[in-house]
Amino acid sequence: MSLIVQKFGGTSVGSVEKIQHAASRVIQEIKKGHQVVVVVSAMGKTTDELIRLAAGITQTPNKRDMDMLLSTGEQMTISLLSMALQSEGYSSVSMTGWQAGIQTEAVHSKARITHIETTRMKQELAKGKIVVVAGFQGMDANFELTTLGRGGSDTTAVALASSLAAERCDIYTDVDGVYTSDPRYIKGARKLEGISYDEMLELANLGAGVLHPRAVEYAKNHSLPLTVRSSIEDIEGTLIEEESMLEENLVVRGVAFEGDIVRITVYGLENEFTGLAAIFSVLAENHINVDIIIQSQTELNSTNLSFSIKEEELEETRRVLLNNKDALGFSKIEHEAGLAKVSIVGSGMVSNPGVAAQMFQVLAEHTIAVKMVSTSEIKVSTVVEMNDMLRAAQVVHDSFSLESLQPKPQLAK
Amino acid sequence: MSLIVQKFGGTSVGSVEKIQHAASRVIQEIKKGHQVVVVVSAMGKTTDELIRLAAGITQTPNKRDMDMLLSTGEQMTISLLSMALQSEGYSSVSMTGWQAGIQTEAVHSKARITHIETTRMKQELAKGKIVVVAGFQGMDANFELTTLGRGGSDTTAVALASSLAAERCDIYTDVDGVYTSDPRYIKGARKLEGISYDEMLELANLGAGVLHPRAVEYAKNHSLPLTVRSSIEDIEGTLIEEESMLEENLVVRGVAFEGDIVRITVYGLENEFTGLAAIFSVLAENHINVDIIIQSQTELNSTNLSFSIKEEELEETRRVLLNNKDALGFSKIEHEAGLAKVSIVGSGMVSNPGVAAQMFQVLAEHTIAVKMVSTSEIKVSTVVEMNDMLRAAQVVHDSFSLESLQPKPQLAK
Repeated sequence: MSLIVQKFGGTSVGSVEKIQHAASRVIQEIKKGHQVVVVVSAMGKTTDELIRLAAGITQTPNKRDMDMLLSTGEQMTISLLSMALQSEGYSSVSMTGWQAGIQTEAVHSKARITHIETTRMKQELAKGKIVVVAGFQGMDANFELTTLGRGGSDTTAVALASSLAAERCDIYTDVDGVYTSDPRYIKGARKLEGISYDEMLELANLGAGVLHPRAVEYAKNHSLPLTVRSSIEDIEGTLIEEESMLEENLVVRGVAFEGDIVRITVYGLENEFTGLAAIFSVLAENHINVDIIIQSQTELNSTNLSFSIKEEELEETRRVLLNNKDALGFSKIEHEAGLAKVSIVGSGMVSNPGVAAQMFQVLAEHTIAVKMVSTSEIKVSTVVEMNDMLRAAQVVHDSFSLESLQPKPQLAK
Repeated sequence: MSLIVQKFGGTSVGSVEKIQHAASRVIQEIKKGHQVVVVVSAMGKTTDELIRLAAGITQTPNKRDMDMLLSTGEQMTISLLSMALQSEGYSSVSMTGWQAGIQTEAVHSKARITHIETTRMKQELAKGKIVVVAGFQGMDANFELTTLGRGGSDTTAVALASSLAAERCDIYTDVDGVYTSDPRYIKGARKLEGISYDEMLELANLGAGVLHPRAVEYAKNHSLPLTVRSSIEDIEGTLIEEESMLEENLVVRGVAFEGDIVRITVYGLENEFTGLAAIFSVLAENHINVDIIIQSQTELNSTNLSFSIKEEELEETRRVLLNNKDALGFSKIEHEAGLAKVSIVGSGMVSNPGVAAQMFQVLAEHTIAVKMVSTSEIKVSTVVEMNDMLRAAQVVHDSFSLESLQPKPQLAK
């Protein structure tokens, strides 16, 4: 009997009715003869409400206590979904992350899964039960509750699917698949039938928001087919798989954008070699995610350095850098907030050198200033003013004709 | 250094402000040089809201899933209280029931504590931390989350105090002590400075509602001094201790009352000896609490039996009895709902034979019909119509002059 892992996000379990609907999607797979493990997030706005409660007490909550607080959210959902399945006559068992054997690093608020001890889940599946697991959470070696950070439930689902050698992992969400860009903002954005792990990874990293990058990475490393599909409508979603299996081979697969970016500039870095390493080591130790990095030499023996972070990490970043000012050896730091990132992604890019040029050209034609640039083999990212973000994404989406099925990109001369 | 266990109930942690206030009561004890373990309930109406959510899905939720759901309530409170303590500059660690080593029977919704593994708590106390433990919950030997049932947080507090050899266990609540009767309903009800374990046990069992009987029993068995005091005002509460230590020695210490009582009558019980045992065995197996039991022989080889239960257990009681009708050997069952229990409690009663008579007489004078009676060495309970409950409690309270400090009970001639 084949095993399917299904994951329902917060909006898909946001009310009693939605939980009952999710139960019906689980039962659909059971009726097809599959064994099912279901991973759920906290209901709708539960996490936000818990964060608001904590904010009423302190602006700087201890991360361990935050994990303790937030992990109640998914625990509520597993019990309610399990009740819904049983009230339909199906046998189920709810499990917290630690009961499901999800072991993580000893890091709070963004732990990584280190191992999944599947014995208990396998026993329950063998008894014919639907296993309902709390996403986003686990336990470290000291029996401390941990959470996996943003998008953690996707990671839980993919990690479980891989550990249990599932046939497929279905991510149910409030959108019906992966689009060439966000259809709420971009005219002509179109649902993709398929996308490669690498492309999805870039899109996920670029803030497309449908799937967490760690989840995609995990699926890629284990060649696990992943689908993103609607929890509301019963229609085909988008299949994420090896590139070789894809039908279309587009130069540019999609346009992603993400706001609330801050550029930090570090002036007068004394030692350009060790200084650079020291700065990013200390940021990494404090679990601050740095995105684009640009280095420029201005004078003899003094280097300036710019990098982008998310606005929510600005305080922490400033604190960490200023606390280590002498050790790191720089003269001052400045930051520019109110920025956004607009990126194009596509595995066809590597063999089409004019793609980046076309992007810069179309942005220039629309007088959109580019503040930072970063490229990889399958993406080009630009940092622009937050005010220009949606306009930039739209003109780039138009320029690469992503609204049509067989785009013929106009490469820059 | 001496250790104090403090327990804050749901109303005492019902909002961010109340949690901050509870933190200040903890800090008070720390400043006196004590080590402190704090036990908390779920915030205010959280448990009710969770039950309402479950009721939206099914009227017959699985008890395991209910425990999974309800145990999130206290987990929220421990994290928030821990944050509040830290924001005041104190070091603390929040612990779920299972993290605090609270091991229980494998029973859902009303498990008993079997053992407390205190190693981790002692380590944290030794590091100078305030230990904040989720009340009401534990874990069985199969790593399943369990809850202790009504008043479970009191039990957690007393059990922890006893296991950790605490100097005292302070139960903070929304009343400022134990009263001769409920001051919200009974004119002249007065706060007691002290009360014996046995008296408190009867009052708790009789629905006085201030403390859970299991908690008092536990304290008695371990000679643990217990106080009940206000979480709002900083005034003396009521000390619960060995009888020999009490200042006043009253004939009647208090009047308790409790509504929503149902009398079940089992007709035509074939075998009065084994039948009786069989009925209460099967009820006990199903964790149904039976209170007053009255047996009367009507005809040859046929016995009728009445007993009282709480109204919320009526459905389950009927189901259990009717499912076992043949095995138990009875002809039919009937029930009368809308009843209440009014009781007097006092360790002086045993040497004052006229106390019960005085109670019956005052009820008769006020034309209050008594449906069932039960007595012990330190209490007399009567079952009356729900409509008569408060009036009965008031006339009995008046009759024994409980409003004054040195009552001189008028014994019936």
